[in-house]
Amino acid sequence: MPHIKQVAITGGTHGNELTGVHLLKHWRSDPAQVARSSFTTELHLTNPRANGLNRRYIDQDLNRQFSLDDLNNTALLGYEHQQAKALNALLGPKEDPRVDFVIDLHTTTANMGTSLIFNSEDPLVVGMAFYVQQQLPHAKLFMDPGERLSDTFLTSVGRYNGFLVEVGPVPQGLLRADVYNETQAVVMHCLDYLDAFNRGTLPNLAGQREGFCFVEKVVLPENEQGELTAMVHPDLQDRDYQPIAPGDPFFMTLAGDTLAYTGSKVVYGAFINEAAYYDAHVGLSLMDKIQIELKSEPTAD
Amino acid sequence: MPHIKQVAITGGTHGNELTGVHLLKHWRSDPAQVARSSFTTELHLTNPRANGLNRRYIDQDLNRQFSLDDLNNTALLGYEHQQAKALNALLGPKEDPRVDFVIDLHTTTANMGTSLIFNSEDPLVVGMAFYVQQQLPHAKLFMDPGERLSDTFLTSVGRYNGFLVEVGPVPQGLLRADVYNETQAVVMHCLDYLDAFNRGTLPNLAGQREGFCFVEKVVLPENEQGELTAMVHPDLQDRDYQPIAPGDPFFMTLAGDTLAYTGSKVVYGAFINEAAYYDAHVGLSLMDKIQIELKSEPTAD
Repeated sequence: MPHIKQVAITGGTHGNELTGVHLLKHWRSDPAQVARSSFTTELHLTNPRANGLNRRYIDQDLNRQFSLDDLNNTALLGYEHQQAKALNALLGPKEDPRVDFVIDLHTTTANMGTSLIFNSEDPLVVGMAFYVQQQLPHAKLFMDPGERLSDTFLTSVGRYNGFLVEVGPVPQGLLRADVYNETQAVVMHCLDYLDAFNRGTLPNLAGQREGFCFVEKVVLPENEQGELTAMVHPDLQDRDYQPIAPGDPFFMTLAGDTLAYTGSKVVYGAFINEAAYYDAHVGLSLMDKIQIELKSEPTAD
Repeated sequence: MPHIKQVAITGGTHGNELTGVHLLKHWRSDPAQVARSSFTTELHLTNPRANGLNRRYIDQDLNRQFSLDDLNNTALLGYEHQQAKALNALLGPKEDPRVDFVIDLHTTTANMGTSLIFNSEDPLVVGMAFYVQQQLPHAKLFMDPGERLSDTFLTSVGRYNGFLVEVGPVPQGLLRADVYNETQAVVMHCLDYLDAFNRGTLPNLAGQREGFCFVEKVVLPENEQGELTAMVHPDLQDRDYQPIAPGDPFFMTLAGDTLAYTGSKVVYGAFINEAAYYDAHVGLSLMDKIQIELKSEPTAD
């Protein structure tokens, strides 16, 4: 049986998402909260320079820089390229990581509530999602399975392709106590899960749970000059994880006209009006509703 | 009787408040919406460089640079200092303005709904607030009377010390259709009011209405290193314009403890968790509830 020895909790990967930054400060002053006797927990502020400037990033989005190819590419010299290499040296290296599991703390301006985002079908990872949702039934499972070494997220630097905790809505650059408390609650359950896993005391978990899988990002309508000509429709705003059917109101033009969703099947919205994606005029992500399977015993990949 | 000849609608004074920016684009493509036959309406994007970078400002907050002393101070050379001088040349000069009335469009991340912010007791200005609230009873009147020539707001460059329309909550750097529609509705009522004023067809307005007057900004608790040690309490979050009594929950520390409001009388919160003020760790503004009088016939100041 594998054993989890080293867990890293990371925050400030996006420098203007302050919840994780301040939870790290709190836990540094009260380490007992994140300590579990069957493993060691370490805490890392991952993008201090962007955090100091209250910006998502300095040169590029840090949470897209962790593919093995990019980590090994010495021509990538931006601040976050170098920060990713430093974090890989600290937590990895990716091919044979020192750290078993990375829990990375994020927030969103979208009305997504609590999302557990993971890119692995490994039963240790899926089991964590199922366990947390058993404790917090309102949490949503957001799965986009892929290969760990090519994965670009910070969470992929651990031996298991870990877990991104995404809570909202909260504007960038400030703290909301509800989001702070909820993020802390999720992390406590994640740590309890890993501890129970190590001890062989996991409760029974469902074999299958409902989740969502990323399909595509949708760009808002633009004119020939690349200027926005429409925004998310008021009937779609704040309805993350709700169904969007063909013909449903989708955008509202600057003149107030409704544009309908023209897809051919029901999809689900996520990251609806996420501020971080607005520079690229991305209005939302479309998701499929899926059934996620919890497979046999956990094994390291 | 005075007559309003020239009205300016301004947006993007804070470059990451996109609602006004896009309403200006919309009205430029459909000028009939803001045209009224008794005066001329002009549209101005006031901080294009900050807007292009999706930042509140480049060097300093543009909406604090319009006191007559600062406009005449040639030693102030920041981008917004220069932009304020350019706007004063375009709309003013402040001592004898070309433009009669400036309506400046803003948004907030706080749950303030629609606030009509004005710094003048002139009955033309107060009458506009009363008229808009008659049409939109949920709108709040936010009055902080002062002398027009020393006022630092862009709206003070007009012959009357005009009107700041502040709608939220909306994160910085994106559009919400509900906030966009509401802001447009307020502006339509403002223009209708000025048109009815010119024509002598104003409806009867109340002689007195409830409003709020700024008392002070409250800084969140910090440690000796100047780091935040607490945030707005969950029971206070989103309760803008609601009473705060001595002993009410006010802050929550990073450890989850409640700190009570220690003032000696009931006050009212506004700009609760406004992201733009978080760099200075300002958590909210305290307001007094006041009765605002609509005095005799409008007169230019």
